[in-house]
Amino acid sequence: YILLEWVAIESDSSNVLKRPDLHHMMEKAAQKLRLMGGMVELVDIGQQELPDGQTLALPKVVTAQFGSDPNKRTVCIYGHVDVQPAKMDDGWATDPYNLTDINGNLYGRGASDNKAPVLAWIHAVEAYQALHMELPVNVKFIIEGMEETGSNGLEDMIVAQRDIFFSDVDYIIISDCGWLSRRPALTYGTRGNCYFFAEIEGPKQDLHSGVYGGTVIEPMTDLIGILDTLIDPNGKILIPGIREAVAPLSDEEWKMYQDIQFDLENYKNKIGVDQLMYNSKVDLLAHMWRYPTVSIHGIQGAFSDHGTKTVIPAKVVAKFSIRQVPNMDPAVVKKQVNVKNRTFLSLKSPNKLKVTMVIGAKPWLADTQDPVFEAGKAAIKRVFNVDPDLIREGATIPIARTFQDVTGKSIIMMPIGGFDDGLHSQNEKMSRYNYIEGTKYFIAYLHEVSLIKKTSV
Amino acid sequence: YILLEWVAIESDSSNVLKRPDLHHMMEKAAQKLRLMGGMVELVDIGQQELPDGQTLALPKVVTAQFGSDPNKRTVCIYGHVDVQPAKMDDGWATDPYNLTDINGNLYGRGASDNKAPVLAWIHAVEAYQALHMELPVNVKFIIEGMEETGSNGLEDMIVAQRDIFFSDVDYIIISDCGWLSRRPALTYGTRGNCYFFAEIEGPKQDLHSGVYGGTVIEPMTDLIGILDTLIDPNGKILIPGIREAVAPLSDEEWKMYQDIQFDLENYKNKIGVDQLMYNSKVDLLAHMWRYPTVSIHGIQGAFSDHGTKTVIPAKVVAKFSIRQVPNMDPAVVKKQVNVKNRTFLSLKSPNKLKVTMVIGAKPWLADTQDPVFEAGKAAIKRVFNVDPDLIREGATIPIARTFQDVTGKSIIMMPIGGFDDGLHSQNEKMSRYNYIEGTKYFIAYLHEVSLIKKTSV
Repeated sequence: YILLEWVAIESDSSNVLKRPDLHHMMEKAAQKLRLMGGMVELVDIGQQELPDGQTLALPKVVTAQFGSDPNKRTVCIYGHVDVQPAKMDDGWATDPYNLTDINGNLYGRGASDNKAPVLAWIHAVEAYQALHMELPVNVKFIIEGMEETGSNGLEDMIVAQRDIFFSDVDYIIISDCGWLSRRPALTYGTRGNCYFFAEIEGPKQDLHSGVYGGTVIEPMTDLIGILDTLIDPNGKILIPGIREAVAPLSDEEWKMYQDIQFDLENYKNKIGVDQLMYNSKVDLLAHMWRYPTVSIHGIQGAFSDHGTKTVIPAKVVAKFSIRQVPNMDPAVVKKQVNVKNRTFLSLKSPNKLKVTMVIGAKPWLADTQDPVFEAGKAAIKRVFNVDPDLIREGATIPIARTFQDVTGKSIIMMPIGGFDDGLHSQNEKMSRYNYIEGTKYFIAYLHEVSLIKKTSV
Repeated sequence: YILLEWVAIESDSSNVLKRPDLHHMMEKAAQKLRLMGGMVELVDIGQQELPDGQTLALPKVVTAQFGSDPNKRTVCIYGHVDVQPAKMDDGWATDPYNLTDINGNLYGRGASDNKAPVLAWIHAVEAYQALHMELPVNVKFIIEGMEETGSNGLEDMIVAQRDIFFSDVDYIIISDCGWLSRRPALTYGTRGNCYFFAEIEGPKQDLHSGVYGGTVIEPMTDLIGILDTLIDPNGKILIPGIREAVAPLSDEEWKMYQDIQFDLENYKNKIGVDQLMYNSKVDLLAHMWRYPTVSIHGIQGAFSDHGTKTVIPAKVVAKFSIRQVPNMDPAVVKKQVNVKNRTFLSLKSPNKLKVTMVIGAKPWLADTQDPVFEAGKAAIKRVFNVDPDLIREGATIPIARTFQDVTGKSIIMMPIGGFDDGLHSQNEKMSRYNYIEGTKYFIAYLHEVSLIKKTSV
């Protein structure tokens, strides 16, 4: 059970104390690929700077290559073997680092995100080897260890390798997401994300609200005033220009959404609400995938503990983000947000406002008619005997856009995770069914993608 | 140097690990009063329940009595010998528990709040004893050890002792605040406080804002909408009925405020702002002391750390408070806040709102023409050769109101702390000048208060 061994390694990339485990995990992945006869490299991607100024070695990126026949297609599989934090205290029913089989589900941190999918691709290659069959395509791997904390160092590495490792790659495959229901899916889009810090600074230190309340203009009051001009509670974005920028929903798209298997009641139960923002499937999917939204995540610097502190916080930083969709442009969004002129100046506050866009990740959208997608549909039909749902992700997978922008290759997302795998949550699992059938599906895909006619350069 | 010994005891009532030090502090205070010949008791006020369900003995309350001549007035001096937390790392220039004399200032945690004022009263009694003079009034002490965390257990003790310890008390003196400037002051009022929790509960757990953003009605959006209807950034309270309830500012009061020594520029520098809510002294003092205000302290349950978490918080609790002044009534204020009907219902949100008033402390206001105040004015005139400023506190000192409501006695606040003592802050100090002249002032006060004609019952 190699998945059991991999899950047992606490490769938590957010915890610097676990960095040795993470290095060990990368070694382990490299070793596995080496034993299979791959041409393997552990690529040094430098140091990570910690908030306290210290530096820490980043986990090396594992690259591997199986076959280099210039007459064959070359696919590159991206995956990651780092995980989110997990501990029993969070509410796990079983030890998160001891893969546990209960009723056909394999519970463990990283089982679905992303260790089993990476292994499913490895098993797909092994299957050809076991049958003494030649791989129908050249297969490359790029496996990183910092995905859960923002893929630190990876983009530079991709840029550096563009004309080397990626030069002969035709298609890049990502299997780092999940289906929407029990029906297998192909993913052709993700939303981007513009993440903002709005900081308001007033007094030089926190003040007692009894002693000073009424004499100073409180930063929190200003901040609430600003936040109340972003989105109204029924979901309408109040920032001028944002809604107008969004690509209109085509009839074709509407029809695609109609056909997708998605149970609104299930979705409500899962998140525990009586009422969603929209009551129809199409509206809901559209707002999950292809319309922007604004989320206010919280406020740093204000009182956030239990109890009753009587404080006037001196400096408060609101965190909010706007999900990006075609045809929005983060640079334009940054200008549109413009709370300074839209709101803050009219408050006539003496406090200082500073707005920073700390993340500006673009959305990714693929053409579902592209041959890589046709190959995916055929492989799913072959293994599962159904047509896949063509879906998007509401979340951001920046690596997709990076691959697209840097390498110019076609990208496809081929999830095998279930809709209820609990990524980033307690009791994460990968079902045996998805793991085994997913491996078969990847085997079939390597065949299907080899059939794509190689056009002469 | 008894103040040095007292400051050396880390009687931090908020830190359960320091509870032995706190018990030791109470013993030490009792011992001092006993050595002076007082009739001293250590009154057991029971147990404190900790958040984890465990219980911990509360520090005993020290009571003492010097003299019981029924022909004399009896004053009762209230003080506390517990302190706020302090450590070098907070930015202290000297060890907070090693009283350090620098340029005539005595630096140390609890120096001004409230150990030196308690000792000044003790020294005042000792002065009469040293001069072999009979005390002109009977003097009682009530010294507690939980003031900094809300005087846990004290109110019950006062109620229980109403017809015992307090039966022969004429006046209650509190010296637990500070002057407004270098001019000595008497304090005749404090604001009360209504502290609210507004909780909005949506999904059953936090959600990823990329995956779910756009499909659920986010509790944070609702909460911001509610908070934006409490107060506008220029200080106008938006809750209907609050402003109307406030006792109007009389011409006499306006004139009193005019005469108070208060430097706006100093005040601005101290808190580090370029602009205050009001530009005139009278407006500022009035809004510090005798008008209500709303402060939004923060939000519990939302993202409040550094960094960029992409979360839709499932349950968020806003903390805000409204300072109470005559003629407001906490029970009425609770109804007036009423964000449910005023705001929340119009949002048509499926999320659940729960508003709780967790503190409802009333303001305290004394008559400055009362003989206890006349005695105070005379004592200040005698020692400092000036007329005192008659001031209020913007903050809440619930014990004043409790004494008033339970015992029905006249209360006076006689601060000796300086306006820049840094209570609850780094580098707290008491100046030698205030400590020594303050002791003289208390000696004089015991004389002046003895002159108040005892009306026959």
